[in-house]
Amino acid sequence: MDDHKIFLSESEMPQAWYNINPDLPAPLAPPLHPGTGQPLGPEDLAPLFPMALIAQEMSMDPWVDIPDEVLDVYKLWRPSPLHRAVRLEEALGTPARIYYKNESVSPPGSHKPNTAVAQVYYNKMEGTKRIVTETGAGQWGSALAFACQLFDIACEVYMVKASYHQKPYRRLLMETWGGTCFPSPSDRTEAGRAILAEDPDSPGSLGIAISEAVEEAAQDETAKYSLGSVLNHVLLHQTITGLEMKKQFEIAGDYPDVIVGCVGGGSNFAGFCFPFLKDKMDGKRDTEIIAVEPTACPTLSRGMFEYDFGDTAQLTPLLKMFTLGHKFIPAPIHAGGLRYHGASPLISLLVSQGVIETQALQQRDVFDGALTFARSEGHIPAPETAHAVRAAIDEALKCKETGEEKCIVIGYSGHGHFDMAAYEHYLSGDMTDYALPQADIDEAASYLPKVE
Amino acid sequence: MDDHKIFLSESEMPQAWYNINPDLPAPLAPPLHPGTGQPLGPEDLAPLFPMALIAQEMSMDPWVDIPDEVLDVYKLWRPSPLHRAVRLEEALGTPARIYYKNESVSPPGSHKPNTAVAQVYYNKMEGTKRIVTETGAGQWGSALAFACQLFDIACEVYMVKASYHQKPYRRLLMETWGGTCFPSPSDRTEAGRAILAEDPDSPGSLGIAISEAVEEAAQDETAKYSLGSVLNHVLLHQTITGLEMKKQFEIAGDYPDVIVGCVGGGSNFAGFCFPFLKDKMDGKRDTEIIAVEPTACPTLSRGMFEYDFGDTAQLTPLLKMFTLGHKFIPAPIHAGGLRYHGASPLISLLVSQGVIETQALQQRDVFDGALTFARSEGHIPAPETAHAVRAAIDEALKCKETGEEKCIVIGYSGHGHFDMAAYEHYLSGDMTDYALPQADIDEAASYLPKVE
Repeated sequence: MDDHKIFLSESEMPQAWYNINPDLPAPLAPPLHPGTGQPLGPEDLAPLFPMALIAQEMSMDPWVDIPDEVLDVYKLWRPSPLHRAVRLEEALGTPARIYYKNESVSPPGSHKPNTAVAQVYYNKMEGTKRIVTETGAGQWGSALAFACQLFDIACEVYMVKASYHQKPYRRLLMETWGGTCFPSPSDRTEAGRAILAEDPDSPGSLGIAISEAVEEAAQDETAKYSLGSVLNHVLLHQTITGLEMKKQFEIAGDYPDVIVGCVGGGSNFAGFCFPFLKDKMDGKRDTEIIAVEPTACPTLSRGMFEYDFGDTAQLTPLLKMFTLGHKFIPAPIHAGGLRYHGASPLISLLVSQGVIETQALQQRDVFDGALTFARSEGHIPAPETAHAVRAAIDEALKCKETGEEKCIVIGYSGHGHFDMAAYEHYLSGDMTDYALPQADIDEAASYLPKVE
Repeated sequence: MDDHKIFLSESEMPQAWYNINPDLPAPLAPPLHPGTGQPLGPEDLAPLFPMALIAQEMSMDPWVDIPDEVLDVYKLWRPSPLHRAVRLEEALGTPARIYYKNESVSPPGSHKPNTAVAQVYYNKMEGTKRIVTETGAGQWGSALAFACQLFDIACEVYMVKASYHQKPYRRLLMETWGGTCFPSPSDRTEAGRAILAEDPDSPGSLGIAISEAVEEAAQDETAKYSLGSVLNHVLLHQTITGLEMKKQFEIAGDYPDVIVGCVGGGSNFAGFCFPFLKDKMDGKRDTEIIAVEPTACPTLSRGMFEYDFGDTAQLTPLLKMFTLGHKFIPAPIHAGGLRYHGASPLISLLVSQGVIETQALQQRDVFDGALTFARSEGHIPAPETAHAVRAAIDEALKCKETGEEKCIVIGYSGHGHFDMAAYEHYLSGDMTDYALPQADIDEAASYLPKVE
């Protein structure tokens, strides 16, 4: 390959998303109603999601056509480039070939708009006037505001209060795209008012913000709720990245031996690897697929594969997934997008089946890798993405030992332009590592919901 | 054209920069020694710049080969995409075709590395161990730190103290790429100490920072100074953007009727338009070329075309250029990169000859245009770039009136990810417009240096 970057033309962009559901090595356990414990039907989800997305959530079709209107918006930044990290390879002195699929080129700077645009489109088609969501550090909220702006739908985001004040730039992104952002807990919802009555100074949490967003969306027939990861339809929309990569590797005349991605809820990771997983499950290839997590929140590496709630307040359906317990509050690492107690049921199943491997990394090692990347390739990874970068560097250094010329691919989910304070923390030498005590996991085991 | 974005492969990247010097409609007035008032020789510049750059500064060759090592680094992000702004056209309801050449895809997020990489390469070839520069808002300093990191040269940046504290993210970019950043005035130089003795709380200025950087570079034989705009060799390196655009318009089957770009020192603007100016001066095309400035610093629109110093402290050579006077301190608009009292001699000559037109815009109009762009195309322009965006929108709206189907091109010099505070200021409704009183210009006329 002569070029360091492989682009596809817009006409080469995939026209359908890949649905892994019918290809799974074992059936997915159904989501359960939080009240009755019975499997959910479409009608249970109808107050929160448009029917098209509920149908995708349960679909067994292997391919789902991408609507033209969604493809048209994708063209603002897609297809995204696949880079060969030649300078990183040289810096490491590795015989490995390292690539990264660069999702940071989207206007919000991450993979999140791949699903935000699709979700907003289907809402628009079904007459939704307003979409409500929650956001932690702001990646998801800003992607949804961007998408809502393009389809002329109102966007309201409950942002964890601590982040609302600490990360004003991501809030400003939402506002620049016409979204409205409320610090959560707020006095706009019963859930928020209840928290504020107990603690007027509550810094908020993702669990509280979810409760507020769900409550507000459920109250108004013209409003819906939107989730940025975990659910099947979200992962489905992200497969555009892996499908593009397959075409790009054909052009490069190469194929991944190792794919690494970071996992919070699991959607970016799924998008990068599912199209390759199919080849692996079909026995055509033996690609190693590695899900990378922080040691501070090692959901897949050390969690339990059980039914659990998606939120602290126990309002969401029960999902069969790896979990550290819905009351678990991870240490304050900079990779805010990886601080989630659960993980996508699809990813969880594939981990439980041994198709996906897991790795947990310490924060300082992660930033050390991010710096190596930034100082060779130039681009500055988000703290979440830096987990994948570090794992790839470790794989490449193993190749240096063994002499293997492996093809290693990084799921480069986003840039760190709004996370420079994390780099400052690392450069100052004050950054802390975190390991999760086993007692915390044991405690979670004691309160997980009992499911027959 | 079917695609919304036009990419070139790396092998289609231009292999030489275009030097406009031999094609000028009138000869460029020579730079003069600040002490003697005599034309400068190469030896006068040798303490500050490597000989290869001095040769380029004075070259009459129409093409200068781009070294392979520079092309290799460019490949980290170049060729950059040319976007067709379909959604902006729709939002405006204009029959015009609007394009933007997107230089924001570079790791530092602007056009600045096009010259930073070249300058650092030539320094490396001549044995420079350390490069010293100044920076205002930090765009240039971060681009130079990025380039120095890749060629393993130390980078020291004197950053205007007010910005050093107000814009910590751009400082952190420099540090992430291994650069060292000092708030200026500092106690590291005589110039800095003299200022601090008078005013220990001085917020600094670009003029002071230049003095400190020049002083430090001149003291050490292994150190050199580097400038991010204004000079001929800087503009030369930026022509890669316009040369790429020419190829991209051939692919699109289109040609610009109007090119708009923002002007601070003038380097991004020159890069975008010089390759098209040649067609215009040859009489092949009649493209309108518009240099856009802030009303707060209308150097080309209202300044004097005279010899002046490049810095407040009168240390630099005298350049024949449009100037508002070297003592002029522009109002605190958000487009920090456009707050310069002078302009490139090449651009100034072309304006004086009527080949380039000028426009000055109010800050609130500029941000209104930036918001229209961000809410249709998604990407968020830097405040500087937003000047070009606003001017293009105005041209497109004129086409709506007249029905003309003009092809309008925006020199999209950088993204606004590190400038979200400016957007907050605009969205809050508190942003101020500034107009320059004629008395300020008259005052400058009184103190311009007398040149025989």
